[in-house]
Amino acid sequence: MKRPTVVVLGAGYGGLSVITKLQKLVNADDADIILVNKNDYHYESTWLHEAAAGTMSPDAVRFDIGGVIDKGKVNFVQATVENIDTKAQKVITDRSEIAYDYLVVGLGFEGETFGIPGLKEHAFSIANVKAARQIRDHIEYQFATYSLEEVKDPSRLTIIVGGAGFTGIEFLGELADRLPELCEEYDVDPKAVRILCVEAAPMVLPGFDEELVEYAVNYLKSKGIEFSIGTPLTEATPEGVKIKKGEDVFEEIPAKTVVWAAGVRGNSIIEKAGFDNMRARIKVDPDLRAPGHNNVFIVGDCALMINAQTERPYPPTAQIAMQQGAHTAHNLVALFKGEELEPFTPDLKGTVCSLGESEAIGEVFGRKITGKKAAMMKKVIDNRALYILGGPGLVFKKGKLNMF
Amino acid sequence: MKRPTVVVLGAGYGGLSVITKLQKLVNADDADIILVNKNDYHYESTWLHEAAAGTMSPDAVRFDIGGVIDKGKVNFVQATVENIDTKAQKVITDRSEIAYDYLVVGLGFEGETFGIPGLKEHAFSIANVKAARQIRDHIEYQFATYSLEEVKDPSRLTIIVGGAGFTGIEFLGELADRLPELCEEYDVDPKAVRILCVEAAPMVLPGFDEELVEYAVNYLKSKGIEFSIGTPLTEATPEGVKIKKGEDVFEEIPAKTVVWAAGVRGNSIIEKAGFDNMRARIKVDPDLRAPGHNNVFIVGDCALMINAQTERPYPPTAQIAMQQGAHTAHNLVALFKGEELEPFTPDLKGTVCSLGESEAIGEVFGRKITGKKAAMMKKVIDNRALYILGGPGLVFKKGKLNMF
Repeated sequence: MKRPTVVVLGAGYGGLSVITKLQKLVNADDADIILVNKNDYHYESTWLHEAAAGTMSPDAVRFDIGGVIDKGKVNFVQATVENIDTKAQKVITDRSEIAYDYLVVGLGFEGETFGIPGLKEHAFSIANVKAARQIRDHIEYQFATYSLEEVKDPSRLTIIVGGAGFTGIEFLGELADRLPELCEEYDVDPKAVRILCVEAAPMVLPGFDEELVEYAVNYLKSKGIEFSIGTPLTEATPEGVKIKKGEDVFEEIPAKTVVWAAGVRGNSIIEKAGFDNMRARIKVDPDLRAPGHNNVFIVGDCALMINAQTERPYPPTAQIAMQQGAHTAHNLVALFKGEELEPFTPDLKGTVCSLGESEAIGEVFGRKITGKKAAMMKKVIDNRALYILGGPGLVFKKGKLNMF
Repeated sequence: MKRPTVVVLGAGYGGLSVITKLQKLVNADDADIILVNKNDYHYESTWLHEAAAGTMSPDAVRFDIGGVIDKGKVNFVQATVENIDTKAQKVITDRSEIAYDYLVVGLGFEGETFGIPGLKEHAFSIANVKAARQIRDHIEYQFATYSLEEVKDPSRLTIIVGGAGFTGIEFLGELADRLPELCEEYDVDPKAVRILCVEAAPMVLPGFDEELVEYAVNYLKSKGIEFSIGTPLTEATPEGVKIKKGEDVFEEIPAKTVVWAAGVRGNSIIEKAGFDNMRARIKVDPDLRAPGHNNVFIVGDCALMINAQTERPYPPTAQIAMQQGAHTAHNLVALFKGEELEPFTPDLKGTVCSLGESEAIGEVFGRKITGKKAAMMKKVIDNRALYILGGPGLVFKKGKLNMF
């Protein structure tokens, strides 16, 4: 009997967790395992806001895939996935077609602009390492130019962050840390800088405890960050943004830097491949398979799962993606052996939202934490993810070891 | 008798040398000495190409004026000079008017664009610390954007350097050093980068020994830098440059980065103040005074002096500016005492043109040197300038101590 070919798409938290678990569970002749990823590196997508603000080097956010896979068991193919043909059981990439017996889709998120005009053209998005790096360099160039120019354009020092969700708030926290350094480095008066968070919803960090949210907002305000809540961003232009402040009340804010952090969706390959989906996410079966496809698993941001208690979708977090990855590795082995698949249940340990290097808010094991304690817990969580993906060596190399 | 007021304009090599020498020669009650400068720092204008290429931090190129002046003898005023009224014997700044008995003008150079259309709007100039920093950040932003964008725009990786004189060649040398790092950092294939030096004149580094010039050009070519010599840059546009390759033969080169390094002139304040001048330079008397103004000295880039041997002007170098500054300090003391002024004769020790961290060409004490030896000599020269301006402490703090 021919051994099965398992193809894993994406080396994010989900896909890479499948690989690192599976290579422990199988022998080299149990299966052909192929990992397909656009880049030859994995990046910590939960750290991208740090690279974008310039508080962390873009290179510190990524590590070589080659360093964590077992090359005797896993074949790595660097290619961009262009489509999936589930009938023919093959993946079409920009370099070749790859046949599979079992497929795991962990292709990650894409930004969602909700059709707001101008966002795609004029706003940045913290989408990946390269995009984060571009934001950092753009902000630095604007500061450099402001500092140099005879007639000062204040919009060069205006940063609009669209969205007060998790990404938006974490990015604001890093900006608050970075700003004094930037002003010092570029001879700019901090008073000339304006950072404004614009959010359409009537609240900040929906789903978070109110007391913690208040703590976060007060902290960020104390660092000079402004909030405009309940005010949809209606357009991005080459000059800045338009926001809606009330019925027929609009305001134009000149700003050279607009970072859209308000929405994510699944990967467009999901739509292209013809899966039933909601904004490029697949409402997966309890064993994480795509409905109607008994050899296709979905992990990470493309998997939509409803939390029975809250009746709302689980948020697309690294924690859940990694649990899904490890679980799927076990289920794949069960499939090889003809055994029953296990349903997946997330084990939610908590969530910490960082507000820069030494501030954060969080709910961990049912307890609320803030300040330095929460910031330390965030680093523990970050290091734990590295540990799961690459063991102690990776924690040593890439971990956040400045914890105390 | 009222003690005289000496006002020194500019804290470049010339002006600051006047101050550091004068404060040694006089007692606190001999004269009121006022130094006027736009910034509260001096910068090493001969190092700016390094900051522009990103091989040196912009902060490493400057030091606080407060650290090198004797505050018991010198009053520092941070202000921008707007005009000089030689009749009323006062300097008009953006903050106040300052009366003088003796004036030293060391206001430095400005870029000369020779009326070429578009250069002011679309080309960068390595004019000062802030301008150098902007060039570095601009190049990084272009690399970041190229790396990210789906449809690659090769003009983001095209750098045109206008001018193959001293500044242009030294900047190219630094770019050659920086490029491998940039490509590594931004995941860019070095083959996709194009660096082209465009020069109207038929030669590189006019005035330099031919053999040395050949060494420099061969070295830079070996690093992938292209030269287009004898081809005037006729226009800069938002898309790039137009160059004239022959009678009625023009070529358009798309390039997001155009650095104009082909011409300097004196400071426009010289013209505004009504001095007789040639491109904002004053052909000074042998004692460095402006003709017809027996209480006004000119040092540095605004002073035009003809070398009797070659019948050509001395180049505007830091070496000569510092000698002029020290000489003028002595002549000021002579004036206080009613003694005769001494004529100035430059003591030319030689010139080294750097080609990056460990390559250079030079003629020093009549001998030709190249390679590592010349690069080391360049660092000796750079450190010597710091020593003259601020003593051993400044060399220790800001010097190029990685000499061996």
